[in-house]
Amino acid sequence: MSKVAIFGYGTIGSGVVEVLEKKREYIKKQAGEEISVKYVLDLRDFPGDPIEKILVHDVQVILSDPEVDIVVEVMGGVHPAYEYVKSALLAGKSAVTSNKALVAACGPELLQIARERNLNFQFEASVGGGIPIIRPLYTSLTAGDASGIFGILNGTTNYMLTKMFDDEMSYEDALAQAQALGYAERDPSADVEGFDACRKIAILASVASGQFVDYQDIPTRGIVGITQEDMSLADLLGYGIKLIGRFSVAEGKPYAEVTPMLVPFDHALYPVKDVFNGILVDGDVNDAIMFYGSGAGKLPTAGAVVSDIIDITKNSGRTIQAGYSAEKLELADLSACKRAFYVRVAGAASSDDAARAFASSFGADSYTEIEDGTYAFITEPMTRAAADKLCADAPGSVNIIPVID
Amino acid sequence: MSKVAIFGYGTIGSGVVEVLEKKREYIKKQAGEEISVKYVLDLRDFPGDPIEKILVHDVQVILSDPEVDIVVEVMGGVHPAYEYVKSALLAGKSAVTSNKALVAACGPELLQIARERNLNFQFEASVGGGIPIIRPLYTSLTAGDASGIFGILNGTTNYMLTKMFDDEMSYEDALAQAQALGYAERDPSADVEGFDACRKIAILASVASGQFVDYQDIPTRGIVGITQEDMSLADLLGYGIKLIGRFSVAEGKPYAEVTPMLVPFDHALYPVKDVFNGILVDGDVNDAIMFYGSGAGKLPTAGAVVSDIIDITKNSGRTIQAGYSAEKLELADLSACKRAFYVRVAGAASSDDAARAFASSFGADSYTEIEDGTYAFITEPMTRAAADKLCADAPGSVNIIPVID
Repeated sequence: MSKVAIFGYGTIGSGVVEVLEKKREYIKKQAGEEISVKYVLDLRDFPGDPIEKILVHDVQVILSDPEVDIVVEVMGGVHPAYEYVKSALLAGKSAVTSNKALVAACGPELLQIARERNLNFQFEASVGGGIPIIRPLYTSLTAGDASGIFGILNGTTNYMLTKMFDDEMSYEDALAQAQALGYAERDPSADVEGFDACRKIAILASVASGQFVDYQDIPTRGIVGITQEDMSLADLLGYGIKLIGRFSVAEGKPYAEVTPMLVPFDHALYPVKDVFNGILVDGDVNDAIMFYGSGAGKLPTAGAVVSDIIDITKNSGRTIQAGYSAEKLELADLSACKRAFYVRVAGAASSDDAARAFASSFGADSYTEIEDGTYAFITEPMTRAAADKLCADAPGSVNIIPVID
Repeated sequence: MSKVAIFGYGTIGSGVVEVLEKKREYIKKQAGEEISVKYVLDLRDFPGDPIEKILVHDVQVILSDPEVDIVVEVMGGVHPAYEYVKSALLAGKSAVTSNKALVAACGPELLQIARERNLNFQFEASVGGGIPIIRPLYTSLTAGDASGIFGILNGTTNYMLTKMFDDEMSYEDALAQAQALGYAERDPSADVEGFDACRKIAILASVASGQFVDYQDIPTRGIVGITQEDMSLADLLGYGIKLIGRFSVAEGKPYAEVTPMLVPFDHALYPVKDVFNGILVDGDVNDAIMFYGSGAGKLPTAGAVVSDIIDITKNSGRTIQAGYSAEKLELADLSACKRAFYVRVAGAASSDDAARAFASSFGADSYTEIEDGTYAFITEPMTRAAADKLCADAPGSVNIIPVID
């Protein structure tokens, strides 16, 4: 019998209780022993809820109970999640979290404490909701290095971009609809500024490389500034636009970024629409593999948490994943890399000749126009600095977006 | 130091040697110890090849060497692969195979021998080449039952169907092109008759259900009989046609089949084209998740084999996966299930009224025609028996294909 304490009785926490209860027999078979919830920790009361009798408000009750084998942190935020999980590990309990902010900020320290004590700190649900991606990275794609990870990691922005592309919605209308459906917060900045995707790609990059990739080192640009005109122009050029979290290794140098990218129609990530996530992993041994599914949802995310609980229960007394070391991976400077860019010029009535000349200065043979003075083209491979320099001479306002490589 | 013997020095066998050699340091880090190849078994000689000095022709040399921890069976076929792997397990060695025929035919017995001796018998590469699917099924999607698996599991037929759909090729030309590119054998029946997909879905169904699903129980229909006209008609109706291996549980009853299916344009499996594989797993806890990638290839497949070797090395002395029991899962009769079918009628010049009346007898409001006398429609949900009975009155030759559900 393995006993679990759950920190936080919100959507995911109540989902974990529900899954462990409803699938009790099935999970017992998977784990080799019964898994039961001994405590739920929350500041709130839940009168009438069956968990009322195991609800505690004081984390010390859990930390000091030697019967608790595993704590499950699903509160969100870095504090006090960090203090609670660290205390639990120091008290000899393994920990599972769905909290990307916690893993991105404190993963190296928590993994190290777990390793030193033959415990486990697992976080499958922190990226991609119910899509298995963390565990496949360290148990299946183990024969070679991951040379590139390209992920649509944020369902909210993917939903908005899909509405803008497929239904020709404006950015503002797409955001309003995402908010109305509960996909986006009233303050949508964590999603639309790319902060959420940034933490997720930092976690994937850390697991894939085996070294800590600090999310604060990752150049991050969200979808603010992408217009419906960009969607129309990209479409005419043969591309969609997706918000991509990317980690790659080229000539031994590691790169990471979060940015909108133009994705050609025949690319595996192109059909990833609405709130779905898709994570493409390329390697020096494996070919490109995509993991695809809904990146959120109460039960699927809870299911990923429960899969970690089962894995830890099956492996009691031993650290099963290396996770990654606390040694920081120094990212190389992406701006020195040559790649193709989409350049959109708007707001200036240019002659055809002027537009053609401007596109030509980027090595583009042609350009695509949607209305007088708004046009776009794909550059030949160049550094971002070179593209920016050429754009200083633009006949109107410009938007530069890299093309996926 | 873990020592490995490889049975068979063909494409995958030489790939395994190559990966273990080229990625020696990386793999050592992943496995926690060095993994080296002590023997390669093959009937042939390979003069000048570096493996020459570890090549043996007699399996007994390997079976009687206590230094060999893991044997890797990549010869293909059931015999003598079965005898060699069984003997190795009985001699206290774990085993890895990429051989779907062996797993489908002898998996229950080999798994049982491994379990009884705290050894492992693993077969990640037997389905989907380098795509991780077996291990995610038993280590990640563990919180709930898999209620449905729909897989494009055979790259050769998917390539042919793609050529027929996208390039309007005839079946014969698509097959000839697949053969010219080395995707299809001179005798293509294992692919085009669905036998390969049948063994693969049997393995997935066994792992997902925890009980032995006998491939011989699975109704199997290949792509023979699919015409270019079917492709055009499906396209007009809003579908592609894919060869699907399917395992599902509905109202507690397990079903399995291999059959071409109509797949709507907005379905996750629709964009899986050319030689790619895609496996969709739906569950009572997880939402639908797709694993996508190239289902073959020397290094990716070898990489999947090596991931099994690493997993076994990390878990020396303990059986890490339940696999599935030798108890056979009795499949329910699919022909009693109601579902929608595509019905194509060809070769009889019918009046519009006659075609409309025929479609209407299946509950279809309308039909789609490509030339006089060749038309198709989608039925309302009905049993296959009911559809067959109605087709007895068809005004021409018919082709009936289920629509994916």
